[in-house]
This record gives sequence, C-alpha cells and structure tokens, in this order.
Amino acid sequence: MMDLWHCADARSFRPLWMLEEMGLPYTLHLLPFPPRWQQPDYLAINPLGTIPFLKDGAAELTESSGILHYLAAKHGPTPLAVTPDEADFALYTNYLFQSDATFTFPQTLVLRYRLLEPPEKRQPAVADAYAKWFLSRMGWVETHLADGREWLAAGRFTAADIAVGYACLLAGTLGLLADLGPETRGWWGRCTARDGYRRARAAQSTPAA
Amino acid sequence: MMDLWHCADARSFRPLWMLEEMGLPYTLHLLPFPPRWQQPDYLAINPLGTIPFLKDGAAELTESSGILHYLAAKHGPTPLAVTPDEADFALYTNYLFQSDATFTFPQTLVLRYRLLEPPEKRQPAVADAYAKWFLSRMGWVETHLADGREWLAAGRFTAADIAVGYACLLAGTLGLLADLGPETRGWWGRCTARDGYRRARAAQSTPAA
Repeated sequence: MMDLWHCADARSFRPLWMLEEMGLPYTLHLLPFPPRWQQPDYLAINPLGTIPFLKDGAAELTESSGILHYLAAKHGPTPLAVTPDEADFALYTNYLFQSDATFTFPQTLVLRYRLLEPPEKRQPAVADAYAKWFLSRMGWVETHLADGREWLAAGRFTAADIAVGYACLLAGTLGLLADLGPETRGWWGRCTARDGYRRARAAQSTPAA
Repeated sequence: MMDLWHCADARSFRPLWMLEEMGLPYTLHLLPFPPRWQQPDYLAINPLGTIPFLKDGAAELTESSGILHYLAAKHGPTPLAVTPDEADFALYTNYLFQSDATFTFPQTLVLRYRLLEPPEKRQPAVADAYAKWFLSRMGWVETHLADGREWLAAGRFTAADIAVGYACLLAGTLGLLADLGPETRGWWGRCTARDGYRRARAAQSTPAA
C-alpha cells in the first residue's frame, strides 16, 4: 500500500490522478496549503515540507511528474507509459519533463505574486512576466495538437496528458485558461471528461486519512 | 549523428556532458545567450527559441534533464541510467526531475532579477527569495550525501549527477556555491574532476559548427 500526501488541486494532483488511472491502491493524506506553515508536524514526514510526497516501501519521492514515471516503471506495465521503441518516445519524455519545469513553475510565480503574498509584497510585473512566459511555452502543446492529435503522444491517453494536464488545471485556478489556444483547451476538455480524472477529483474532496 | 544547440554554461550543458560521458557522436551548434534575441534565425530551428534543442532523426527535445533520460533509453544500455530493478531507482528518478524543476528554475530568477535585467527592472526581493528557496531545496541533496554516498544514486556516477551537477555549475555562476553544504560541495568537486566533464567544458569553448 502506497501513501500519498496531497493538497487539493496542488501539483500532487498528478500522482493522485495517475494512481486512479492505474487502479492502484493507496492511502491519501490530505493537508492544508501550504503544509509547511499550516501543518508543521508534516516536516517529520517530509523535511522539505513540499507536496507531493509519495512513500512506497523504502522509496520516497517528492517530484510530481517524476512520480508518474516511477509508478509506470515500478507498478506497470501500463499503456499510460510510452516505451523507447515507440515513435513518440521523445515527445512523451519531453512532455513529462516540460510539465513541471516549464509549464508549472512559471505559474507558481503568478500564484505567489498575484494571489498568495500580502498586498504590500505582491509583484505585478513579475507575475505578468511569468504569465506571458507560461503562455508562450504552451505554444509547443498547441502546435503539436494542431497536427490532428487527440492526445499528446502515441495516439492514446498517457502520463504525458496527466503531467501537462495539471498545468491546465492550475491555469484554470489562475484565470489563464482562456488565454491558451483552442486545440489545447479542446484537449483539456477531453482529459477532464475521463473517469480517472473525476475519481481523482472526488478522492481529494473526501479525506481518506 | 545527433545535433545539439547549446549556449556556453547554460542548461544545455547537461546533454553536452551526457553525450561526452556516453561517448556518442554529435554536432554541437554554439549560440550566443539568449539566442531568441541574439540569433533570431534560430527560431526557424526551434520556434520556442530555448536551449537546449536536440535533434536525433525525427526526435526533437527541448528539456535538458529529459534529454538525459532519452539518451540513456535510446542509445544505451549505459551504467549512467539506474534501472527500475535497482534499489535507488526512486531516488534517481526523483533527482532527474528535481534537477531542473526544483534546483534550476529558482536560480533562473536570481539570474534574471539580480544580473540580466537592466537596473531599473531588477527585483532584489524576488532574487533573494528564490536564492533562499534554492538553497533550502538543496538540503535534500546534502542529507542524502551525508549518508556516506560518493555519488547521488546507486553507488556510481549516473545521469542524476549530471542533472543535479548542472544546478551546482549555475550556482557557481551566481555566487551561491559557497552557501551549499559541505557534502554537496565535496560531491560537486568529484563531478568536475571527471574526464567527461572536462571534455564537455572543452567542447563548448571550440565551436564545432
């Protein structure tokens, strides 16, 4: 049985969604955001105080997109992974790494400097610069989807859709979704219509532990 | 033959170092930084204007740490990869994803708002906040190395050392290296003593194309 520490709609939604899509058993620990201030005893579990935190026996992981790769490799095989012998392996790999480093981190600056900081510490110029930065990088997704793709890679729903999809969920929270391209918004609509997505949303609204 | 587009000492140093460690043939295209302003015709090759950009036949990748995983999977087997059956697979995977999303992106805010922006657009409070953020997250590395590890994972030099090592190279550029822990600085010294590291440094000082 795996344990996942999670805050509603935070990056840890990626592993939660993956666990639901793979049908793996897990215990969900819901925390208030940000946990390092709201629940200091969490530091005894994850000294970084960040989420997600996944424990699987002796294995401990903190990176939301890395956990998707870990779960597919350790608890697969699963069609959610694209293997090196498939034509889209490079595209899939690039998406897994882009999803957090390139599509999520810039949005956390918008979140911090437009919404979370007290008014006197807000930095509208920084928030605007990184909103623009995020939207420009998402052009990569729009361009690839415009080739007639239903999903991001390999012609099927994969961990790449989960990883990049979370960047769209966050964009919705920040009011940036309407600025994404039409292909991207159409694809995100297909993602959110999935049973796995809905089960993950339901799971985070009912604390299991 | 693969093509790598690179700026000296930028994130694209990760794939350059990996190519040298694996002994793979490649053509290096050196660009001025930042290429999207300094060399606009680069946008015809990579419309995002970012580096790295790796072309390997039809495969195109933009994510520096993702390229390490791609190269190991497509051009291996190599002891630089840690496989799912090894005990440190989770730690290795987490490092690959941490290296850019968690250890490099915060440093790019220090670079931008302390050094690159013209004086009137600098944001010392933002630069200071993300320098602190970077140093706090690097505690993960210090803690694991303090267990007596010579390398980050699996008891040997791997792509995790290259991926996280680049964050230390950047920390050196930014004057943050001295603030890292002693275990981390000792490990980084072992990385930079490697022939593969030295060959990569030499390659970027001699444009091959």
